[in-house]
Amino acid sequence: MYKGLENYSNIANVFTEAEICHIISRSDQGMTRAELSRFTGFSKSTISKHVDTLLASGYITEVYENKKTSYLTLNEDCGYVVAVDLGATSLKIAVCNIKGEPMLVDVAEDIVVNVPPTDILERVVKTANSMIEKLGLERDKIIGVGMGVPAPIEYSTGKPVCPPIMKMWDDFPVKEYLSQAFKTRAYVDNDVNIMALEERWKGDGRSDDNFLFIKLGTGIGCGIIINGNIYRGSNGCAGDVGHVSVEGFNHLCYCGNIGCLEKLAGGAAIAESARGMAQTGKSPYLSQLMNKGETITCRSVNDAINNLDEACIEYIRSVGRYIGEVVAKLVIFYNPTKVIFGGGITNFGDVLLTPVREVVFGRSTALATRNLQILKSRLGDNIGVVGAAILVREELFKPNEFSKVLEAMR
Amino acid sequence: MYKGLENYSNIANVFTEAEICHIISRSDQGMTRAELSRFTGFSKSTISKHVDTLLASGYITEVYENKKTSYLTLNEDCGYVVAVDLGATSLKIAVCNIKGEPMLVDVAEDIVVNVPPTDILERVVKTANSMIEKLGLERDKIIGVGMGVPAPIEYSTGKPVCPPIMKMWDDFPVKEYLSQAFKTRAYVDNDVNIMALEERWKGDGRSDDNFLFIKLGTGIGCGIIINGNIYRGSNGCAGDVGHVSVEGFNHLCYCGNIGCLEKLAGGAAIAESARGMAQTGKSPYLSQLMNKGETITCRSVNDAINNLDEACIEYIRSVGRYIGEVVAKLVIFYNPTKVIFGGGITNFGDVLLTPVREVVFGRSTALATRNLQILKSRLGDNIGVVGAAILVREELFKPNEFSKVLEAMR
Repeated sequence: MYKGLENYSNIANVFTEAEICHIISRSDQGMTRAELSRFTGFSKSTISKHVDTLLASGYITEVYENKKTSYLTLNEDCGYVVAVDLGATSLKIAVCNIKGEPMLVDVAEDIVVNVPPTDILERVVKTANSMIEKLGLERDKIIGVGMGVPAPIEYSTGKPVCPPIMKMWDDFPVKEYLSQAFKTRAYVDNDVNIMALEERWKGDGRSDDNFLFIKLGTGIGCGIIINGNIYRGSNGCAGDVGHVSVEGFNHLCYCGNIGCLEKLAGGAAIAESARGMAQTGKSPYLSQLMNKGETITCRSVNDAINNLDEACIEYIRSVGRYIGEVVAKLVIFYNPTKVIFGGGITNFGDVLLTPVREVVFGRSTALATRNLQILKSRLGDNIGVVGAAILVREELFKPNEFSKVLEAMR
Repeated sequence: MYKGLENYSNIANVFTEAEICHIISRSDQGMTRAELSRFTGFSKSTISKHVDTLLASGYITEVYENKKTSYLTLNEDCGYVVAVDLGATSLKIAVCNIKGEPMLVDVAEDIVVNVPPTDILERVVKTANSMIEKLGLERDKIIGVGMGVPAPIEYSTGKPVCPPIMKMWDDFPVKEYLSQAFKTRAYVDNDVNIMALEERWKGDGRSDDNFLFIKLGTGIGCGIIINGNIYRGSNGCAGDVGHVSVEGFNHLCYCGNIGCLEKLAGGAAIAESARGMAQTGKSPYLSQLMNKGETITCRSVNDAINNLDEACIEYIRSVGRYIGEVVAKLVIFYNPTKVIFGGGITNFGDVLLTPVREVVFGRSTALATRNLQILKSRLGDNIGVVGAAILVREELFKPNEFSKVLEAMR
């Protein structure tokens, strides 16, 4: 509750301004007043009144295409966001403008995540602070912090819940820590959810209300977009598809179960199989690499495929079929318009995705696949931090939250 | 767009009244003005003003518990709903009050659904009209029609999409037909979705925002409640779990695929297996029944279990394990708080549900099952028609729709 709540007409104004700002924030090139009027159903005069307030507040700005046409767009200098993407082995930290465009990015690839959380969070604060200084930004222009973490997250509190690969973070109040360190609002979510959100606003999901983003990397996870928003489930672990069982497969998984997809199609599993193919000589290309003393990794398998090593091509095709079996069920359950794949394993390209498509289109229902597209993500290098910045933008411009911002300015 | 949209403050009032009515409609015993104020964040005086308008309109009424306390509740006589539940072999038609309470119900168990849609819809109109007459209701008090259909439905148009067991209904405008026949708004949805909605407001899902309702009957389907509302997917077929493949099972299904759960655990599959157990003598109880000349059905299997026939108990346990395998994946994907089972097959009770629980709790992730409950639905005989009436109530009291009703009355 914030001051002024008793005064309904005032609230209505603030909510309308928040809503207008939210709509503008979601459009890349901006919107005209006429478009805003059509979009919201408010009259042009009502829109004009609120737009004037927002222009005065500095949250939006007007860009003239020509004498007649002008677009209202977010003022990218109205505030900045600290965006963090923690992966299983990497840490990206960025300072972004409110549009989610990174201004400085710091990437570390030597991360061990199962350490006390403060070890990593202190590093985040230190690095971000030096970036803020380097950019010469005023501290009170930092209007939010967003962070993606490779763990199930209780979203309201921003605490990891039983995180399998970072057990020392269990129940640690990451959101509260970041909020206090940067003296502003903070939001923490599962890393794959954040990538799905980025796909929603900057990627191939921008015209889709219901789609799935599946990350194939060290781990395998699925971000679920329903009615345009992230669906997290009741414990924050919806879409944990890496631990779905695969038919006829009995490997033990660290989660305490057997036959999990991740043990078959995750990065570690692929590298292990590759070492086996090198040792047995099943893959001549990998054997050759091994004999040269090289370490066999997923990248070696990709090289082998580019050199038309048949054993590796057939192996990755089989991995694709296993993934396809799980995705076929996901498609029946969610009936999405798209399934978008991201993560390092997608570098295998169509050698992986063709068998995925084969199984999904063969084994889902006809209706659920009628308009379905299965795609490889086209998001760029900064995937993850851009998503974390968008998470802040989405939360900030929600009418309830943004009303507080506008009220505080009055 | 409706008249008055240009006048923002008027709209705000109408929307507030719609919202209050929506909140009241969702509570069984009603709400006090103080509760409405806490619930909405509006001041008591604002609430009082809008409540007076609503009392005058006749949509709500005030019930005095004692001199000091009164509850605002829907006026059950403010309007009536025609509610229809079409099953694979049955047709229930009811006239309900706006609270979803049936006043008259007509049940036919001899239905063949794959006939021209007008054959059934004409029967619906005729039966409902004679009920309305019998009840002595004024025609203009019929404020909506709701219908559940055993098919995937495009919700916005109310048309079946590639319905597998009622192919003659494909693309038929059921919603438009009903709307014209009864001269009021009509809503058509998949029958299992409607049961899930009933579970949400009248059953064990009333305190759950994210849960699944699985109907085990002739067909097997899943209604998905996300954030308190039905999730339908992009083609209206989300949750079509009867056609998920089961490990190591190769029976042909009418959907064109093999190994579907429905061919293993649907009513027809169970009856067929039972006949096999009777013929081979594997189940002494069923053999005895067959030799007496009785037809072997699912009910026979239930009788056999009640007489401790071990073959039937073990068989239904195996059916439960197959269902459990599919539900384990659903639980990982959706992370619901509850999975509620309904439909005729649940009459097997714990003989069926114990192995379901065994597999789900054994084969989902620990976090997704932490607070999970697997239950048998406790909804009564009128399940389906009550849901259809609630569908109308939910749509009618959505601010956009109800604003039109209130505006028309002014």
